[in-house]
Amino acid sequence: MLKGHQSWVFRNKPVIVSTAAVVGPFEGRGPLAEDFDIIHGDSFIGQDSWEKAERTLLEEASTIAIERAGITKEQVQFHIGGDLLNQIMSSSYASRTLTIPYIGVFGACSTSMESLALASYLIDTGGAKHVLAATCSHNSSAEKQFRYPTEYGSQKPPTAQYTATGSGAAVVAGSGSGPVVVAATIGRVVDMGIKDPFNMGAAMAPAAVDTITAHFRDLQVGPDHYDMIVTGDLAKVGHDIASELFDKHNIPMHKTRFRDCGMMLYDYDKQMVQAGGSGCACSAVVTYGHLIRKLRKGELKRILVVATGSLHSPLAIQQGESIPGIAHAVAIEAVPESPVEGG
Amino acid sequence: MLKGHQSWVFRNKPVIVSTAAVVGPFEGRGPLAEDFDIIHGDSFIGQDSWEKAERTLLEEASTIAIERAGITKEQVQFHIGGDLLNQIMSSSYASRTLTIPYIGVFGACSTSMESLALASYLIDTGGAKHVLAATCSHNSSAEKQFRYPTEYGSQKPPTAQYTATGSGAAVVAGSGSGPVVVAATIGRVVDMGIKDPFNMGAAMAPAAVDTITAHFRDLQVGPDHYDMIVTGDLAKVGHDIASELFDKHNIPMHKTRFRDCGMMLYDYDKQMVQAGGSGCACSAVVTYGHLIRKLRKGELKRILVVATGSLHSPLAIQQGESIPGIAHAVAIEAVPESPVEGG
Repeated sequence: MLKGHQSWVFRNKPVIVSTAAVVGPFEGRGPLAEDFDIIHGDSFIGQDSWEKAERTLLEEASTIAIERAGITKEQVQFHIGGDLLNQIMSSSYASRTLTIPYIGVFGACSTSMESLALASYLIDTGGAKHVLAATCSHNSSAEKQFRYPTEYGSQKPPTAQYTATGSGAAVVAGSGSGPVVVAATIGRVVDMGIKDPFNMGAAMAPAAVDTITAHFRDLQVGPDHYDMIVTGDLAKVGHDIASELFDKHNIPMHKTRFRDCGMMLYDYDKQMVQAGGSGCACSAVVTYGHLIRKLRKGELKRILVVATGSLHSPLAIQQGESIPGIAHAVAIEAVPESPVEGG
Repeated sequence: MLKGHQSWVFRNKPVIVSTAAVVGPFEGRGPLAEDFDIIHGDSFIGQDSWEKAERTLLEEASTIAIERAGITKEQVQFHIGGDLLNQIMSSSYASRTLTIPYIGVFGACSTSMESLALASYLIDTGGAKHVLAATCSHNSSAEKQFRYPTEYGSQKPPTAQYTATGSGAAVVAGSGSGPVVVAATIGRVVDMGIKDPFNMGAAMAPAAVDTITAHFRDLQVGPDHYDMIVTGDLAKVGHDIASELFDKHNIPMHKTRFRDCGMMLYDYDKQMVQAGGSGCACSAVVTYGHLIRKLRKGELKRILVVATGSLHSPLAIQQGESIPGIAHAVAIEAVPESPVEGG
């Protein structure tokens, strides 16, 4: 149900009964490798194009999550998902394989939490028994679509981000064992005039701050409420901007608890990812691979995942537009014991 | 709440308190001209690109619908919408102007009913007080993105469809005056192997039949239940295929009550639209301009709008893929008196 202006609280505590995270070779050499279900050795994943490889990642993650939930795909009422490719091609074609009624969504890299928020909403209100939320991205298909031909091997500025190759999927249900989704905040489109497609962090940071601030206001909680508040893919540049904005607004974010998936997925010292990771898969594989594991083990109790999306369209940039950002936040708890509403 | 496998029934009868339909010059010369709020005389709508024109149409329709609902945009909790352009650019940039928390969705031309279904769901379950559902398309921006450069003036086969220029928007609320949304069925992705981007009707027809059949099964109703069952944009070719499929499955669709927005929007004898209209705007302007008016006047009592989407991505076609289709259905009634569940 609605809480405040743009948030939902889930009184029936939808359960994330299973998740899966599948990644490419580069992500498999990062610090979270042990948390992934499949690490592919080749970025083509046995396909003849990167786009088909991306779709295969999504099909794999979805299939593993559904199997792990102990159900068949026929028992899943809705598949909610999207990706970065034009016409969310990977999700639509994967859904053709899954044959689950399909709600296509798009919020660029915020799609991971947009889909989890909607899935949790449907479960909470009796609109489904099982919902699959899944997203994916592929470094090479994104590079050729959004920036330069991959073969061109263009050099990148330090503000650029590395689109993650992978897919994360979750099955949400009304009952079962697993972390529970307790609230979600849907973000507004925020545009601070950034026109550089090699600086997505700066484009997304104000949106992240806007959504987190709205979440605090709507739920009447503060940063202390969470063990970890983790943005999707602001990476180093965007994370620094967001931290400064919180300081400016006198919102005391804990330096050690305010994290970013784009800074967690790769090893800065060894992997050349400029400012950090990005892509629909970035927050999806870190959340569904790494963070959910920590929640299951009790190493984290309560987190807020704020997936950030740069609504970058090459055509808009060619027409002189700036890049708007958006962020959607989902609050997940290890055990369904403490009410979120502070009262 | 869930009904059957892939449908929702809305017990609290969300009200479509206002709608708006804005179109381009060509649509203004069609038979539904009197039902539109604005008919633009120029397809650039005072902008310097067709993409910006498309966004302007969406901003106009949204603004009119919100004003007509007697509220301010600050009173709208969520804007749900999408369009055909890569990265649903028109919707995202319009949402930047609207500054309403934004749920971007994509189902190609089925987006109109995907967004109305979700908006109605949120209202029915207390997730919002007012939701804006809005979609748009523009003939020239779609042509250049999906087919050939507009300047090329390519000839078209008779199976081709004409993407509508326009935007339709609706405000859904928990109470108020207007037609009510009583049920929705979310469709699956269906692919019958069509590879011709100039024959969308054939690609979408099986999806329309799949969703309508699922709707009948889930709600335990038949074609007789509705005054009109109207598909989004199958146009002549797709409508004929769908009619044949229903005959084959022994589902007795009424010839006069089974209609298609793509065949209603233009004047076949005078306007060169090949098989008929298409685009996110097609079902949106026919529904929000024409059909809602008929429901308000009592000329229609109960309709099922089945927006059809061809999940066509040029890149997928270039890689030898066929074009999957999808369809989402929304049942709308003139007065909130008769339960849909037949019991």
